[in-house]
Amino acid sequence: MRVMVLRIGHRIPRDERITTHVCLTARALGANGVYISDVQDRELVATVRHVSERFGGDFQVEAGRPWRSTLMDWKRTGGKVIHLTAYGMPLPRVINVIRGARGDKLVVVGAEKVPGELYGLADWNVAVTNQPISEVSALGIFLDWLFKHKRLEHKFPEYQIRIIPSEHGKNVTVD
Amino acid sequence: MRVMVLRIGHRIPRDERITTHVCLTARALGANGVYISDVQDRELVATVRHVSERFGGDFQVEAGRPWRSTLMDWKRTGGKVIHLTAYGMPLPRVINVIRGARGDKLVVVGAEKVPGELYGLADWNVAVTNQPISEVSALGIFLDWLFKHKRLEHKFPEYQIRIIPSEHGKNVTVD
Repeated sequence: MRVMVLRIGHRIPRDERITTHVCLTARALGANGVYISDVQDRELVATVRHVSERFGGDFQVEAGRPWRSTLMDWKRTGGKVIHLTAYGMPLPRVINVIRGARGDKLVVVGAEKVPGELYGLADWNVAVTNQPISEVSALGIFLDWLFKHKRLEHKFPEYQIRIIPSEHGKNVTVD
Repeated sequence: MRVMVLRIGHRIPRDERITTHVCLTARALGANGVYISDVQDRELVATVRHVSERFGGDFQVEAGRPWRSTLMDWKRTGGKVIHLTAYGMPLPRVINVIRGARGDKLVVVGAEKVPGELYGLADWNVAVTNQPISEVSALGIFLDWLFKHKRLEHKFPEYQIRIIPSEHGKNVTVD
């Protein structure tokens, strides 16, 4: 199962840091990549690619594609769309159905406001708590649940730097 | 068990949005409150209190206390300190010990850089993945694990607005 994140509503410079956190969270928790819709943000893309090169793995990041056609293309090829929103169905009630559903998964995370039609286009609108929260933590928790809490010790291949877990210090190994 | 979050290294205006996301995540996932250390940020405190008043519960937010004395006072009264850092021990390997430990919990999340002595002062340095991630998602995932994945459908008391879960729309009830 391929899992991509679609970040919509990104604005420069307002969302640069939050979207960077979305990308790092997506990578760390096992998504295959992020599409940042509608806006080209070369600096952000370069930052995330640089992290990925240093810390390993094959994380994909692309910016500038229109969100609607990205989503429609995904559905047309049999993929499923999950929209994370505080208005949606509680994660614990829908996660088993989502995990069991065929097809690759596109996880959509908005910024402040999202287009209303997204609620209709998504296969599932999922709430990581029905409370005001952050799209960054909502995404992290969703992916952790999607992968059954098994991705936290994943080792990324082809790293230049790897962190060695340490009780009270900082320890890295450089390839 | 009382759980407070200590946000260190907050800078205005750089971290305003990220720290807001830290606070909303702390509240949504069941922490009792957040201390924003060393810096007074009245606007941020007001924003978070306003959300809390509208959506319910008794979330505490305070800014301006020095981080070191906050942490030392916490320890002196028998509380435990957990520092979230990519350099720490993987969450799955330490969560049972942390859950079983006596005392209230102070969860420390830094911004870009944290003082080196924090690694020694913390009872546990915990990594939510040993990868570059976001303090926002690291906090959310940590709290979700701490509360055994049981806090996602919590209903906050004394709300003015409550979101009613919906499959394809937005539905709120106003008290």
